[in-house]
Amino acid sequence: MKHFTSVKDVTNISALVEEVLFLKQQPYAFKHLGENKVLGLIFMNPSLRTRLSTQRASMNLGMNVIVMDINKEGWKLESREGAVMDGDAAEHVKDAVAVMGQYCDIIGIRSFPSLENREDDYAENVLNQFIRYAGVPIVSLESTTLHPLQSLADLVTIQEYKKTPKPKVVLTWAPHPKALPQAVPNSFAEWMCNAEVDLVITHPEGYELDEKYTWNATIEYDQKKAFEGAEFIYAKNWSSYKQYGKILSKDRNWTVSADKMKLTNEAYFMHCLPVRRNVVVDDEVIDSPQSIVIKQAANRLWAAQAVLKKILEHT
Amino acid sequence: MKHFTSVKDVTNISALVEEVLFLKQQPYAFKHLGENKVLGLIFMNPSLRTRLSTQRASMNLGMNVIVMDINKEGWKLESREGAVMDGDAAEHVKDAVAVMGQYCDIIGIRSFPSLENREDDYAENVLNQFIRYAGVPIVSLESTTLHPLQSLADLVTIQEYKKTPKPKVVLTWAPHPKALPQAVPNSFAEWMCNAEVDLVITHPEGYELDEKYTWNATIEYDQKKAFEGAEFIYAKNWSSYKQYGKILSKDRNWTVSADKMKLTNEAYFMHCLPVRRNVVVDDEVIDSPQSIVIKQAANRLWAAQAVLKKILEHT
Amino acid sequence: MKHFTSVKDVTNISALVEEVLFLKQQPYAFKHLGENKVLGLIFMNPSLRTRLSTQRASMNLGMNVIVMDINKEGWKLESREGAVMDGDAAEHVKDAVAVMGQYCDIIGIRSFPSLENREDDYAENVLNQFIRYAGVPIVSLESTTLHPLQSLADLVTIQEYKKTPKPKVVLTWAPHPKALPQAVPNSFAEWMCNAEVDLVITHPEGYELDEKYTWNATIEYDQKKAFEGAEFIYAKNWSSYKQYGKILSKDRNWTVSADKMKLTNEAYFMHCLPVRRNVVVDDEVIDSPQSIVIKQAANRLWAAQAVLKKILEHT
Repeated sequence: MKHFTSVKDVTNISALVEEVLFLKQQPYAFKHLGENKVLGLIFMNPSLRTRLSTQRASMNLGMNVIVMDINKEGWKLESREGAVMDGDAAEHVKDAVAVMGQYCDIIGIRSFPSLENREDDYAENVLNQFIRYAGVPIVSLESTTLHPLQSLADLVTIQEYKKTPKPKVVLTWAPHPKALPQAVPNSFAEWMCNAEVDLVITHPEGYELDEKYTWNATIEYDQKKAFEGAEFIYAKNWSSYKQYGKILSKDRNWTVSADKMKLTNEAYFMHCLPVRRNVVVDDEVIDSPQSIVIKQAANRLWAAQAVLKKILEHT
Repeated sequence: MKHFTSVKDVTNISALVEEVLFLKQQPYAFKHLGENKVLGLIFMNPSLRTRLSTQRASMNLGMNVIVMDINKEGWKLESREGAVMDGDAAEHVKDAVAVMGQYCDIIGIRSFPSLENREDDYAENVLNQFIRYAGVPIVSLESTTLHPLQSLADLVTIQEYKKTPKPKVVLTWAPHPKALPQAVPNSFAEWMCNAEVDLVITHPEGYELDEKYTWNATIEYDQKKAFEGAEFIYAKNWSSYKQYGKILSKDRNWTVSADKMKLTNEAYFMHCLPVRRNVVVDDEVIDSPQSIVIKQAANRLWAAQAVLKKILEHT
Repeated sequence: MKHFTSVKDVTNISALVEEVLFLKQQPYAFKHLGENKVLGLIFMNPSLRTRLSTQRASMNLGMNVIVMDINKEGWKLESREGAVMDGDAAEHVKDAVAVMGQYCDIIGIRSFPSLENREDDYAENVLNQFIRYAGVPIVSLESTTLHPLQSLADLVTIQEYKKTPKPKVVLTWAPHPKALPQAVPNSFAEWMCNAEVDLVITHPEGYELDEKYTWNATIEYDQKKAFEGAEFIYAKNWSSYKQYGKILSKDRNWTVSADKMKLTNEAYFMHCLPVRRNVVVDDEVIDSPQSIVIKQAANRLWAAQAVLKKILEHT
């Protein structure tokens, strides 16, 4: 693996899942791989799970880690080609990235969408400039449109808990006070459409995701109907893709409740976290034995470790 | 040792002091203990000594460290049970903590009191939620009411410098422009009351600490009388416990001066730092040969290392 | 080497350059040197290149690193002797520094000038207090007047690319929207005046640097004349030293353009980065094959590593 930015960078998904599960059993089996290697983690936005799990993953592989919060610790970066830089931005992203690539063997980058201009956000300018200018492998720590480390952990978790060979997995939209990116649901749909699951996506009308990620999914606007027979309920809020970045609904009837969970086939409850309790999901559900959100979060570590291992083996 | 949050977590105080002194002589004797272990340090408030000394301590033990400034780098955490999270807080502390526990083998946490509601502050909600939800050993890096790593370093310093078997140790309140927590004086009193010292606490009326920490101490409102015959003067400001969080006095007559030090038995001067020079203590005192504040700060490293070693041996 | 704050700390400049070039070939040859050693990096101002390159350098030498952003993570420091500290500053720099010296084996410090009071800035109070109070070797990560790690990397780069034994090197002032320190040009001039080069400095009148750094250079106010026959064009903005901290010109006629580069002896283009594209230098120049800015930045790593190695060998 050269870069890791989407499911498309993975040649064999089930082999990668097996790799994750192996590392979970043998965390330190490849500690020699990272010797004398440095991973740079660049955060343009806050991060807890991704930051901690990726740091731990690289430590397990014997790598050193340098963390940099670029907007806070560094400076504002220019990203337009040919810009006359007499404003706020002190450095062009292509210079900053080329320099980082001189000091790091692998770079992880997190950037968030503006949620204002869909075309700009979906062009993935920041991620693509890192790939173009760094000269070293790039790992997406969540980009403007996708969050593949999360989705790999999600798939592994489903693999661990599924009761049938091709389980029904439901991605349900849920209300939230703020406008959130589509990266997690886009990415979850993209991975599930390539996995052995029956994916159903349920949301209010107007919340349809980009079809290039949902091509293999069933869209069901009736949440209760969607829940019937599900083995996994994956809750997540996102802002509208069609009316880009807008909040079209805060309807609490979409909150995942214990009553709705009764419609499922004793489904496990999943969420990528952080989660707004009693808005996205009721305490009763997330605190129930069927909730596997912490185990899902724990798998972030092994997913990151498998990806870093694959990249280290390739370099 | 499972957790380290107060003197009550220590079964044998003098054995722990000996351990600290041993590590000071042999810093790298237990470097194998921390292999493949990760310490997460979570700061909800700024820290210099605790942060640097605990990082160094874990490096000496061969551990990796991940530092996270939670209010700055992460997000605002909800701590109320059952909250409908449609406000500012993006994550419940119990979810965040449970996740951190998946990636770290030991977690250190610093939180500060509000100094507004005594009952809330003294309930130690943040620390207790870490203990309850992390699933890994918790080290207090200063909590709302106690600072045990500081107190252990203080006790070790007194052990090193005492001239008599049971020295007179004076904790003196001193003025300060801001309202400060009671954590350091509470904790110092708690540890001294369990050690072989004669503890006298002196402060203006109204600055009485919680008696559960001062049960074995003499309270003396006359600062000069308190200083007579002292082997150690430990200066510290704190806000009122009775009129909770209030500043009742900024009286510079309480500043530790060279004249007052003459009343003592050539006492050593101690302070946990940071210190407001010429407000809490005159330059003449803190810069004198009797001042052991830097040696006291240096002992923070070995205190932290002994505590981490004990926890690593227990896990 | 005890401290590294200026070219004056270097006994044999060409031997140090050779050391840098050796480490570039054998990065891990001295990994044992840093065992059980901790480097503390204290930033009072943002940093990207210095921060990442120095972290990587110490990792290559087997050291542990602790990074601390002091104004952000810690607290405001007092630096005046004898101050009555009842204002904002929570700690005196001499106490903070003495404490840091207890936990770190080497300390790197970055501080920036106020650009308001020349006498104060050129007194290097922060750096000198670190040297005076830390009790461990100090490395300047850029001080108020000099940036020796940058200059060493610059000299190494010139050594690698020069076509003649004593190349003509031109330091050219260039416009910039903000008032910048003189640290980089001062330091570049100081090192070049001690190296086998023919240094010409060109800038508008009023931008003369402190003569103690430029004693061995030719000052040429006609930029085009200065460029003639140059092997290296080193562009940099700085604010006025004479009218201290002032911007006297933003004249784009001083921008380094492709036309001006034609006047040179096929000169290489250098800049310490970050650079304001199309203000300091046109895209056409910095993106040309003659631009060696990224290779120059890469040398920051080996320069830092050589300096740390020298200090480790001395301790």
